[in-house]
Amino acid sequence: MYAYFDNSATTAPCPEAVEAMHRALTVCWGNPSSLHGIGNAAQALLEDSRAAVAKAIGCEPTELLFTSGGTEGNNLAVLGAAHQLRRMGRRIVSTEIEHASVEEALQQLEAEGFEVIRLHPDRSGHISERALYNAVDRQTILVSMMLVNNEVGSVLPVAAAKRAVLAARAPALIHCDAVQAFGKLPVKPARLGVDLMTVSAHKIHGPKGVGALYLRKGARIHPRSFGGEQERKLRPGTEPMPAIAGFAAAARALPEPNAALTQVAALRDYFCDRLSAIDGAVVNSPADGLPYIVNFSIPGVKSEPMLNYLSANGICVSGGSACSKGKKSRVLTRLELPQPLIDSAVRVSFSRSTTLQEIDLLLQGIAAAKAAIRS
Amino acid sequence: MYAYFDNSATTAPCPEAVEAMHRALTVCWGNPSSLHGIGNAAQALLEDSRAAVAKAIGCEPTELLFTSGGTEGNNLAVLGAAHQLRRMGRRIVSTEIEHASVEEALQQLEAEGFEVIRLHPDRSGHISERALYNAVDRQTILVSMMLVNNEVGSVLPVAAAKRAVLAARAPALIHCDAVQAFGKLPVKPARLGVDLMTVSAHKIHGPKGVGALYLRKGARIHPRSFGGEQERKLRPGTEPMPAIAGFAAAARALPEPNAALTQVAALRDYFCDRLSAIDGAVVNSPADGLPYIVNFSIPGVKSEPMLNYLSANGICVSGGSACSKGKKSRVLTRLELPQPLIDSAVRVSFSRSTTLQEIDLLLQGIAAAKAAIRS
Repeated sequence: MYAYFDNSATTAPCPEAVEAMHRALTVCWGNPSSLHGIGNAAQALLEDSRAAVAKAIGCEPTELLFTSGGTEGNNLAVLGAAHQLRRMGRRIVSTEIEHASVEEALQQLEAEGFEVIRLHPDRSGHISERALYNAVDRQTILVSMMLVNNEVGSVLPVAAAKRAVLAARAPALIHCDAVQAFGKLPVKPARLGVDLMTVSAHKIHGPKGVGALYLRKGARIHPRSFGGEQERKLRPGTEPMPAIAGFAAAARALPEPNAALTQVAALRDYFCDRLSAIDGAVVNSPADGLPYIVNFSIPGVKSEPMLNYLSANGICVSGGSACSKGKKSRVLTRLELPQPLIDSAVRVSFSRSTTLQEIDLLLQGIAAAKAAIRS
Repeated sequence: MYAYFDNSATTAPCPEAVEAMHRALTVCWGNPSSLHGIGNAAQALLEDSRAAVAKAIGCEPTELLFTSGGTEGNNLAVLGAAHQLRRMGRRIVSTEIEHASVEEALQQLEAEGFEVIRLHPDRSGHISERALYNAVDRQTILVSMMLVNNEVGSVLPVAAAKRAVLAARAPALIHCDAVQAFGKLPVKPARLGVDLMTVSAHKIHGPKGVGALYLRKGARIHPRSFGGEQERKLRPGTEPMPAIAGFAAAARALPEPNAALTQVAALRDYFCDRLSAIDGAVVNSPADGLPYIVNFSIPGVKSEPMLNYLSANGICVSGGSACSKGKKSRVLTRLELPQPLIDSAVRVSFSRSTTLQEIDLLLQGIAAAKAAIRS
C-alpha cells in the first residue's frame, strides 16, 4: 500500500472511468467513422463524451477537440495559433514558468523568427498583471499563460490577458494551459476570456492518453497533423475511444469545484501547520495558491534522497514535475529561490480523496527522512 | 448481434487487451516518469510492453517509439524524415494509394518545396518495382510505401525500396506504413530494409489511441512535438499507459502469421467463389493480395444503399477506408476503375475470428441487398 501525494503527476483512475473504458472496449468498440451500426454507436459515444467534457469545462461541445493529452493540446494551441496569425505580427507573450510542452513550443517558434516575451514570476510563482499589460503590444499574436503552475500551485492572472489584448488592440489569440486547474478551479473559457484552453484527463482521475483542446467558436488555428477528417481536421486519426469514454466519465464524476476546494484547503492548512514544526522546513508555494499543490524545502535534505526514503516507506511525492524526471527544476530556478531551497524542493500534491491519516503518515515520513538523511 | 466485416477500420479488442488495460487502470496506474514506487511500476510496465510489441514486429525494443496511433506515426515518420534530410535533397518517392495520413503529409511537404513522385498503381493496386527504380534518384531523401493497401489489400514491393535507394546512391530514409500488414504478414523491418515503420494497435485487436513507430537504430528524424523527455524526446507527453499495456497484450496474443494467413485465405476463397455466383459481381482486389481484405463491386448497386441495407440487417462492411467516411475513394480512382465499379465498391475485411457461418450471412445479405436496391 502506498500513500500517494503525486496527483499533479497523475491520478488514480476513478471507478467511473474504469467502467466506461471497459464498456468502450467490450461493447461499444467501433470506429466512429464507420458508417454502420457498430460505427454509429461509437460515434454516439464520442459525441456524448464530448458533451460531458464540455459541460465540465463550461463550453459548447462544438468548441472541444479531443487530443492525445496535454502535451499535444499545448503544442497544437501554441504552434497552431502562432502559425495561423504569423502575418499579423511576431510577438508572443508567455511566462517563465510554463509547462515544458508550452516552453519548448515557444523555443521552436523563436527558432522560426517569432519574438517571445516571457514574464518573470515573483518568488511564489505570481505573475504581475502590470507586466502582462506592458508586454502585450499591437503586434502580439499570442498570449499563452497557464492557470495554475504545476510545481508550486500559484494561480496566474489569465483573465487579465484579454484586457491587455484589448487595450493594446492586438490581434492575439489567448491560450491557457489549464491542465493543473481543470476539475479544481472553475475554468470556463468565456469567463476567463481565452480562445484556446488545454485540459488533460489523467489529472482528473481519467486515463492517460487523452486530453481536450478548447477552441472558441470562430477562432482558427493551423493544424499540426494531417490525415483523416476527425476532430474537424485539426486532430486527424481514429479517436482514442476507450480513453475518451473514460475522460467523459471522470469529468462527470468531478465534484462541485468549490466544495472540493474547501476540503482540500483544510488538508493543505493542516499539512503546512504541522510541516512548520519540522526544523528548517520552508513552504515555497504561495499562501493564495491552489491548495492541491504544496512545494516545500528542508535545506540540507536534498530532494532525491528524500523521495527515495519516502518511496521506500510507501509514500509517493515528487521532486518537481514528473515530466522533468529528476532534472533540476526550471520553474524553481526562475522563481530565484536560493539554491539550498531548490536542491531540497519536494512537491506534495493532494487529491479529493486524500485523508488526514495519509497526511499524518507523510509528516512522519518527512521527519524520519530528515533525521535519516542528515545523520 | 452484428456480423462484423470491417476489421480494416477497427477490430474488437481481444480479452487479453481488455484485461491488461484494466490492470493498468486499477493496479499499475502510475506515471512512468515519477520517481517513486508507483511510477517505477508503470515504467516497468512501459518497458515490458515495448519489448512485447518489438518482439511481434521483429525489432529491438530500443527501436520502438509509442505514439497515439497510425496517423501520428505516419506524420512523424514522413515529416520528421523529410525535415531531417532537407539539406541532402528534395525528392520524395511514394505512391498514389497511400493512406491519407501519408498522402496529406506529402502534400504538406510539397507546399514546403519538396518534390513528391507518386508511383501509379495498376488496376489491382500493384506498384511496379521498375517504376520505383526509375523514380529514386541521387537526390531522393525519403521513400514512403505502405506494405498492404487498406482499401484493396494489394501488397506493395517495399523490400525493393532499399535496393532502389542503394542503386541510386540516394541518402533516403525508407518508411513503410505497415498498419494493415502488422499481425497478418511478417513485417520485420530489417528484412524489409526499412528505416521507419508505422503500426497501430487497434487493427490487431488492441485499443484505439496507441501505435508505434519503428526507428532503425542509428536513423534520425526531426521531432514534431515538443515537451517532456518521453520516447527519446521524439514523442513527448505522458505515455498512454492503459492503451500501451493493451497494445502489448494484443501483440502477445497474435497468432503465428502464416497459420492465420492460410485460414483467412480459405475464407477469402470461399467468399469470392460464392460472390461470383451473384450476377454482375466483380472483385476489385488482386488475387495475390492480403486475403484479409476483399473489395468488390456490383455495378448498379451503389455503395451507400448497400452499406445501409447490410447494416440494417446486422452486417457491417465498409465503402472504402473508414477515415474517408463515405467520400468517394481516392484509391479506387487512382486504380482507374470504371466509374460504375467505384460507385458500387464495398470493402469486406476479415479477422482471424471470422467464421464461414458469418460469411454465409454476408453473402445472403449481399444478394438480398442487390434485389432490394435494384427493385
